[in-house]
Amino acid sequence: MALHPDRLLPIDPRARDIARRLYHSVAGLPLISPHGHTDPAWYATDAAFPDPATLLVKPDHYIFRLLYSQGVSLDGLGIPRRDGGPVETDSRTIWRLFAANFHLFRATPTRIWFEQSLEDLFGIEERLSTGNADRLYDAISEKLATPAFRPRALYERFNLEVISTTDSPLSDLAYHQALRDSGWKGRVLPAYRPDFVVDPDREGFTKNIVKFTALAGTAMNWQGYLEAHRTRRAYFKALGATSTDHGHPTARTANLAMNEAKSLFKTVISGEASPKERELFRAQMLTEMARMSLEDGLVMQLHPGSFRNHNPNLFRTRGPDMGADIPMATEYVQALKPLLDTMGNDPRLTLILFTLDETSFSRELAPLAGHYPCLRLGPPWWFFDSPEGMRRFRETVTETAGFANTVGFNDDTRAYLSIPARHDMARRIDCGFLAGLVAEHRLDEDEAHELAQDLAYNLAKRAYKL
Amino acid sequence: MALHPDRLLPIDPRARDIARRLYHSVAGLPLISPHGHTDPAWYATDAAFPDPATLLVKPDHYIFRLLYSQGVSLDGLGIPRRDGGPVETDSRTIWRLFAANFHLFRATPTRIWFEQSLEDLFGIEERLSTGNADRLYDAISEKLATPAFRPRALYERFNLEVISTTDSPLSDLAYHQALRDSGWKGRVLPAYRPDFVVDPDREGFTKNIVKFTALAGTAMNWQGYLEAHRTRRAYFKALGATSTDHGHPTARTANLAMNEAKSLFKTVISGEASPKERELFRAQMLTEMARMSLEDGLVMQLHPGSFRNHNPNLFRTRGPDMGADIPMATEYVQALKPLLDTMGNDPRLTLILFTLDETSFSRELAPLAGHYPCLRLGPPWWFFDSPEGMRRFRETVTETAGFANTVGFNDDTRAYLSIPARHDMARRIDCGFLAGLVAEHRLDEDEAHELAQDLAYNLAKRAYKL
Amino acid sequence: MALHPDRLLPIDPRARDIARRLYHSVAGLPLISPHGHTDPAWYATDAAFPDPATLLVKPDHYIFRLLYSQGVSLDGLGIPRRDGGPVETDSRTIWRLFAANFHLFRATPTRIWFEQSLEDLFGIEERLSTGNADRLYDAISEKLATPAFRPRALYERFNLEVISTTDSPLSDLAYHQALRDSGWKGRVLPAYRPDFVVDPDREGFTKNIVKFTALAGTAMNWQGYLEAHRTRRAYFKALGATSTDHGHPTARTANLAMNEAKSLFKTVISGEASPKERELFRAQMLTEMARMSLEDGLVMQLHPGSFRNHNPNLFRTRGPDMGADIPMATEYVQALKPLLDTMGNDPRLTLILFTLDETSFSRELAPLAGHYPCLRLGPPWWFFDSPEGMRRFRETVTETAGFANTVGFNDDTRAYLSIPARHDMARRIDCGFLAGLVAEHRLDEDEAHELAQDLAYNLAKRAYKL
Repeated sequence: MALHPDRLLPIDPRARDIARRLYHSVAGLPLISPHGHTDPAWYATDAAFPDPATLLVKPDHYIFRLLYSQGVSLDGLGIPRRDGGPVETDSRTIWRLFAANFHLFRATPTRIWFEQSLEDLFGIEERLSTGNADRLYDAISEKLATPAFRPRALYERFNLEVISTTDSPLSDLAYHQALRDSGWKGRVLPAYRPDFVVDPDREGFTKNIVKFTALAGTAMNWQGYLEAHRTRRAYFKALGATSTDHGHPTARTANLAMNEAKSLFKTVISGEASPKERELFRAQMLTEMARMSLEDGLVMQLHPGSFRNHNPNLFRTRGPDMGADIPMATEYVQALKPLLDTMGNDPRLTLILFTLDETSFSRELAPLAGHYPCLRLGPPWWFFDSPEGMRRFRETVTETAGFANTVGFNDDTRAYLSIPARHDMARRIDCGFLAGLVAEHRLDEDEAHELAQDLAYNLAKRAYKL
Repeated sequence: MALHPDRLLPIDPRARDIARRLYHSVAGLPLISPHGHTDPAWYATDAAFPDPATLLVKPDHYIFRLLYSQGVSLDGLGIPRRDGGPVETDSRTIWRLFAANFHLFRATPTRIWFEQSLEDLFGIEERLSTGNADRLYDAISEKLATPAFRPRALYERFNLEVISTTDSPLSDLAYHQALRDSGWKGRVLPAYRPDFVVDPDREGFTKNIVKFTALAGTAMNWQGYLEAHRTRRAYFKALGATSTDHGHPTARTANLAMNEAKSLFKTVISGEASPKERELFRAQMLTEMARMSLEDGLVMQLHPGSFRNHNPNLFRTRGPDMGADIPMATEYVQALKPLLDTMGNDPRLTLILFTLDETSFSRELAPLAGHYPCLRLGPPWWFFDSPEGMRRFRETVTETAGFANTVGFNDDTRAYLSIPARHDMARRIDCGFLAGLVAEHRLDEDEAHELAQDLAYNLAKRAYKL
Repeated sequence: MALHPDRLLPIDPRARDIARRLYHSVAGLPLISPHGHTDPAWYATDAAFPDPATLLVKPDHYIFRLLYSQGVSLDGLGIPRRDGGPVETDSRTIWRLFAANFHLFRATPTRIWFEQSLEDLFGIEERLSTGNADRLYDAISEKLATPAFRPRALYERFNLEVISTTDSPLSDLAYHQALRDSGWKGRVLPAYRPDFVVDPDREGFTKNIVKFTALAGTAMNWQGYLEAHRTRRAYFKALGATSTDHGHPTARTANLAMNEAKSLFKTVISGEASPKERELFRAQMLTEMARMSLEDGLVMQLHPGSFRNHNPNLFRTRGPDMGADIPMATEYVQALKPLLDTMGNDPRLTLILFTLDETSFSRELAPLAGHYPCLRLGPPWWFFDSPEGMRRFRETVTETAGFANTVGFNDDTRAYLSIPARHDMARRIDCGFLAGLVAEHRLDEDEAHELAQDLAYNLAKRAYKL
């Protein structure tokens, strides 16, 4: 196997030469990870990771959804049942099942991340298969037990400069506090993700708001609720947060009069709100969050367009995050208007837009970001965090919005070991894109070098105020 | 002219070398044709085909719609009028008209299929033009009269292993029966396409259902109607069918309670159903068909999203299949939910999804097929059965759904002579796509060889249970 | 800097060689500019253009919207305020601000047009920067003052064969008349753009219609209003117009009975029409315009899908055309049906369709244009008038609609100096696309040469009846 040094670079030799030069100038830059889902407890406790299957297979819905689509049983992969029913618990057996089906990942980004992790971190240069599954299991296990594979050591080895987690507004951020107190010089920041107290469709919504206002010591009404947000955002900010994040079914925003908002709040916490009212509440809250961002400077991220838990049987038996979240067509031009009408021209606001609907890139998002001072475009997300997805992103966005309205790369992952491979993929693809422009004489090579630095490092740092 | 041996392969010499090796390893594999529209009578009677215009021009709406769009008269092309009014009947004159406009097909797949048929089957290595129209007409006519150009001889020459036709549920499948009885070893299978008795918008819908239940000897009510489907499906299966096919305006499914379904059936056969009720009936029937597939094992195909007979004047004067069927935006995530909610997790069901809305590939279809065990993605269909269409399909689907959730190639044609050229195009484009992955070091060449065999042969055979 | 002679051609050396040959055969052809926004006064008065900033920066919303998106102030760029409030008036200062931010245009078409204009017209082979801003300002200013840079001299230098302006139905076309009278042999034609008297959402709509019918000497009712259109169209045609142009929010058409149309007209001029009625009026007027085109032979253009003036604060303070027009999803299959149902089969009508929603190309527009004799597809418009936009256009349209259903290039610009660069970009990209087809052996090189001529010159001339 042994990863080819030119992997993911353009095929044409002239373009590849240019891409190689660009890539070598950015390959060693520190990693900025402004949005992701690693667990702050890892860094705080610095405990060893468990075995290969528990670390690399069971928590990764990119992996087990594809296996499941081909008839592999989730029980066999050890994915827990909500009712505590029996599933496979032997990690080696799970690993063998994964290995026997590893061919399914050909030409997926998962394959690339996985193999680069194996080679870079464990020195494994073989393709996983039934034949070598046990041997690789042992090799990985052995290394995982060593101090060099503890979370903090890996953070340093990964050359991370800063990493953001994603946290509930109800969290006490104890691990973040502990990290601050520990004196370790790694920079792990929380991000404010208030979906639990913003989305009336979430289980336990009203109960969450009771806890939320109690935590902040505010009244259980619209004003108290907003005040609770302000209080919690300040708390997050004090522990280093520079951003908020919002996962909504749509990009819809609203700008209600105070009385309407008050009354809507009452309706949604009563549990009697119609679907339309619940959507309106989420819409209103995006505008409120933007207003608070103007006050406290937190950068705002919007991740819309996923139909969560599309498979009700699976949701009932196993819960969320089972690979059953399916993208939907997502409209931005009408949806964002209420928010943009009030704050769109204010360059002090930064609103980073993501999409799972690639058609919006050239039609809506690039023209919006290419005009409104507050808007920036997040990198290709989730299913599009891939070589082809990244290429289509640059090809559809750049001519209208340029590079400066994009924000570099997000690894957006809970798969800690894959972080360097994910950044490396983005750097290779971006350098390849720039090299293509140079080879077509649309850009000079000195400019491409500046842009390569921006895309790999500067833009993320600047956009997220890191 | 003389077709170039490297046509449709990547331009870059390194990628082309790899693609050539892949292509040579699959070019000679037998053809699996699991979905198409050839006439079973051809194989049963084995009669000679008529002249070049009647065989190659008049029945091919891919050809005459493009001529029509540029002002060529359908009368002049001999396309029959419903009222029996006069149209050109001299085949040589029609052929000359086609030849004079052959330049319009530059860079279309029709041109590629046509020229490969001419060269491979008739040894013609010239570009059709006014200058050689008569000579080529004579050369083709002469060969068509020989035994080597009879349907069965061509089947063998084409190296077909199996071909499926598409048949009405009202058909007695007499030609299929005759073929079975004939002792000829070619494998020609029917497929169950019940649109005539499922879609209340079809002309003669209620009359068709009367015939349908009579044919099956069941009652003219909901239960009898369902039973008639079971009976006819069993009959088709006995004659070799392995699949059903459903051409619907949308992908909508429904899962009504028994009483609602009963009552809806009454409404639609009364001829008084509203558009919404007619749509609901089609939706319900997809779920019923899936249920029956679970019982009898027939693979289910869904071809949604065509606005049939968009041109009412043309429909009135000439009928359907005049090249006036226009794709529409097609939604799958909400539409398929009722069906998937009941059977989506059952790997015994195979539901193959097609689309005429390419935006759904990366946004909806790949994520759905990359999760649900019952789903597979059909090859790029109709307007997208083309080099660029096939490339976009692989580029937008593979990273999320892999290769194993796709089902190889369908030629989907009534243009019998073009079948080898159509499969050849798909094999070349798929090998080129794989070669690109190898050249970018995203795939090893031994893996690409395995995948090339899968895409050219194994996946179709497996998915359609052939 | 010095523009590379192979810029925008394919990277692969074989494809580039072919592309070079194709490009050299069309690079010198005269420019046909059938749709654009230059000012007829320029040609009529032949006055010198002002300074570089007033000519190249302030009127170009492609430029200032991108600067604005990155926080550059519109005041600083000298963009006038509606209330006459103070903005920067020193052109050199504005030019310096543009120069300091010139890096934002990397990889945009604006950059390519700008640099080609500088090199071809002013002999400037340097990249604009803060360092050379003043020097380039002086160099450009000096040349602008010379007779060789007057509008008519440039028209000749640009090798324009004909250029169309876009004119209000209320215009007296005095400059066009003056041009006719002047004896100058340049061909500058008006085009009939009746949005002001067709779209009830325009400011002053009813007042415009009063003026309009007065100008035509017709009654202020439905019949008189239609007669006024006929009269004004005839006037435009007498001054050389060959086309009309229609900028609508959607592509919707309608075909109302006479009485309904009469009554709708009354409602919209009363100012009391609902949004739905206003949309219906626009829809009806497209069908009326098509009917008149059948009578008078004017080619009809439809530019739908832009949400105009999306930013209300900006609209209030600065007016329209501020770079705040954002594309929306645009549907054609249902929308055009009423018009196509009556005139779609008539090859005497030419209706050229444009889009800002690229998803419609392969799904709707190519299949429609590949069938209906009256339909043609306009070139990629606005945000898609770019290298990647043009490539995607050919890749998604050609296999279904061929080349003959497209109409060559529109520069569509008010940026006079960029016209040759815009045509040059289109010629390079089209030749590159054709070269790719030849290199893949999908087209012979002699055919590619014919097509290159068509795309660069013949198709525009023919489609627009020039």
